[in-house]
Amino acid sequence: MTKPNIPKGTRDFGAIEMARRNYIFSTVRSVFERFGFRQIETPAMELMTTLMGKYGEEGDKLLFRIQNSGEKAALAPEKGLRYDLTVPFARYVVQHQAELTLPFRRYQIQPVWRADRPQKGRYREFYQCDVDVIGTDSLVSELELIQIVEEVYHTLGIRVCLHLNNRKILAGIAEIIGEPDKIIDITTAIDKLDKIGQDKVNEELLERGLSQEAVQKLQPILSLSGSNSEKLDTMASLLADSETGSKGIEETKRILGLCKATGVNLPIELDLTLARGLNYYTGAIFEVKALDVQIGSITGGGRYDNLTGIFGLPDISGVGISFGADRIYDVLTELNLYPEAMGSTEVMFAAFGQQELEYALRWATALRKAGKRVEVYPEAAKMKKQLAYANAQQVPFVAVVGGNEMETNTVMLKNMLSGEQQQVTLEQLTSMI
Amino acid sequence: MTKPNIPKGTRDFGAIEMARRNYIFSTVRSVFERFGFRQIETPAMELMTTLMGKYGEEGDKLLFRIQNSGEKAALAPEKGLRYDLTVPFARYVVQHQAELTLPFRRYQIQPVWRADRPQKGRYREFYQCDVDVIGTDSLVSELELIQIVEEVYHTLGIRVCLHLNNRKILAGIAEIIGEPDKIIDITTAIDKLDKIGQDKVNEELLERGLSQEAVQKLQPILSLSGSNSEKLDTMASLLADSETGSKGIEETKRILGLCKATGVNLPIELDLTLARGLNYYTGAIFEVKALDVQIGSITGGGRYDNLTGIFGLPDISGVGISFGADRIYDVLTELNLYPEAMGSTEVMFAAFGQQELEYALRWATALRKAGKRVEVYPEAAKMKKQLAYANAQQVPFVAVVGGNEMETNTVMLKNMLSGEQQQVTLEQLTSMI
Repeated sequence: MTKPNIPKGTRDFGAIEMARRNYIFSTVRSVFERFGFRQIETPAMELMTTLMGKYGEEGDKLLFRIQNSGEKAALAPEKGLRYDLTVPFARYVVQHQAELTLPFRRYQIQPVWRADRPQKGRYREFYQCDVDVIGTDSLVSELELIQIVEEVYHTLGIRVCLHLNNRKILAGIAEIIGEPDKIIDITTAIDKLDKIGQDKVNEELLERGLSQEAVQKLQPILSLSGSNSEKLDTMASLLADSETGSKGIEETKRILGLCKATGVNLPIELDLTLARGLNYYTGAIFEVKALDVQIGSITGGGRYDNLTGIFGLPDISGVGISFGADRIYDVLTELNLYPEAMGSTEVMFAAFGQQELEYALRWATALRKAGKRVEVYPEAAKMKKQLAYANAQQVPFVAVVGGNEMETNTVMLKNMLSGEQQQVTLEQLTSMI
Repeated sequence: MTKPNIPKGTRDFGAIEMARRNYIFSTVRSVFERFGFRQIETPAMELMTTLMGKYGEEGDKLLFRIQNSGEKAALAPEKGLRYDLTVPFARYVVQHQAELTLPFRRYQIQPVWRADRPQKGRYREFYQCDVDVIGTDSLVSELELIQIVEEVYHTLGIRVCLHLNNRKILAGIAEIIGEPDKIIDITTAIDKLDKIGQDKVNEELLERGLSQEAVQKLQPILSLSGSNSEKLDTMASLLADSETGSKGIEETKRILGLCKATGVNLPIELDLTLARGLNYYTGAIFEVKALDVQIGSITGGGRYDNLTGIFGLPDISGVGISFGADRIYDVLTELNLYPEAMGSTEVMFAAFGQQELEYALRWATALRKAGKRVEVYPEAAKMKKQLAYANAQQVPFVAVVGGNEMETNTVMLKNMLSGEQQQVTLEQLTSMI
């Protein structure tokens, strides 16, 4: 019989990986809840009518379709696995609008599935951690998402920089230089500034069909420098004639002002090259990068004004960000930032015989009632075997029970790292671990 | 545009439902971890070769098959959604055997999918919470699972009775009465004893093809009564000639003995009608029923000796139980046993103007750093609207900020239940919530 396997692009998570993943999930969850966000969950499968056409032509091809084995495919409505948490969230809001009080603050931590070609760091099943406020256009929500980023990465110990942009600024630039349809070409070119320099960028812009005049007008933006407020001042005068652009500047100033007023302690960089999800975002755009690991964006998001419009409920503004659990996992691993011995057994009992085993079970029961995490090796096996198991599980303490311990109502507590041993009572053990 | 919907048999979980579900999951998780169980997760999709033939012919028909949209179905190996957590666990153990130290103690809390006809209380997507020890035949594991049941339901406040049986006892009975192939017929008939009485059961047994003599021999078992130990004593003499049956009696006595030795405080009833998963379990069989709600089994499991055999790794004994989150949810709801205000916002700030809003944001930041769950209504909207939102979210306290509060460095704290108001400082507020 061949060894069983799992579908390509999917993963099993063992005990150590799960403890680490849970550490990430419980950290973001606890921060989300401190900001009054409430969790929802949606089904793994959505109707194909909900999913199709929402992710572009390429996205449609990456949807996993579901078929009932026992049902004639033609009879049941087509279903697919969710591709992200955003479309199900929009569907949820529209479907449940009568029950919801706006603004609605929700978070959602669930897996999504994409039939992408699997490769290093890209999986067909992976978790997203999304947090969104929908039903208000107040920039206080942008502030709170930035505070959440600050708090999550502060708690995890990851140094990050938050890149901030605004779709309205990009629209303003395109408008001012007379190329309102070329936002994407412009941002793509600007994005290469660091790598290829201003001259090459200009060449590329001309190749992309921008006029000589438009490229000329873009030069002050390409050579923008200084602090965020210096950049914003320059941009403000450049975009003075664009209502949209000026609005974008104003929003960005307000967000940065709120950050300052509440003491946000996070490097924030105004970054005009930031254009993620451009045909989707309408205001602020966020991206978070780790400072000490080269891994790309570990959190991102922005404001959208028409998320629920695709399901017939227009004019609901929202803003949200998504934490990438897999990349955060890799960053924590690379920087060795996991707390030690997360959630694992604090002490294991090892007994020399059947009577000792029952004695150990009574102690274990008492310790668990005191909230301790306790294992009892289930057999009175050879002590060497029991200790090898404890070592493999990285259990820090083993409480050995023999006849002598039973007589004196103690256990022999062995520190598995140092090898030290000492005879202790139940009370001593309870307070030690 | 028609209102969007979700596939039949699936569910959205809103904020209140999720808080309740998380309460159940975090309770079982914390108990599992106190017993040294470690979490694993397996992918939602498994290869069809892993799933097919494991759940009987009926089960095969209930598998959801998955197809990549962009991939020719003929090229990719067939995949399906997992049907339970047991087969993926067996696959996991065999696939990762080189990395595992036995005994392996794992728990797993994940959704499963079945293309069952949806009906009240039966869903196509539902969570299972499984906990298993594999790689030891020690009855200490049975004890620990019983202790887990005790601890979980004690924590949740649900009064339960644990029904205990043993496949070997059932095999012994069938053997003794000379009908070794009729275990299922016998237990099915015995199961109706309460409803239809001994005479009708006898009739049914004859109809099912048992000999007159076999039915006669079964009578002492049908009229079995008394305490667990009285029943066991009667059974011991009845099954004295069956090696298997005697082994089953001995195992059950040992399990009950261990429960007594460790002070398990849980009604346990020896129940010979218990036959769940009979072609699967080889030793102890468990089922837990709520005493105060008529809902059937809320937890069940047993010992199996050949789980991994289906994937080519024979002779590994294990024992496990599964908690049914959906039914536990219904029991807690019916008995009104949820703690109040789980994980939700402790205080919401409501500001009269923009300056007040910034003041509120600074207070909120300070309170969150102290670990409090705080919301700020994101707009300086009409106070009535802000309070209505707080009411809808069941926020217990609203901190109202106007000019007077800003001057005196306080907030007006409103108790949303009693309507009482008092002016408090930040320190007072921090210690009050």
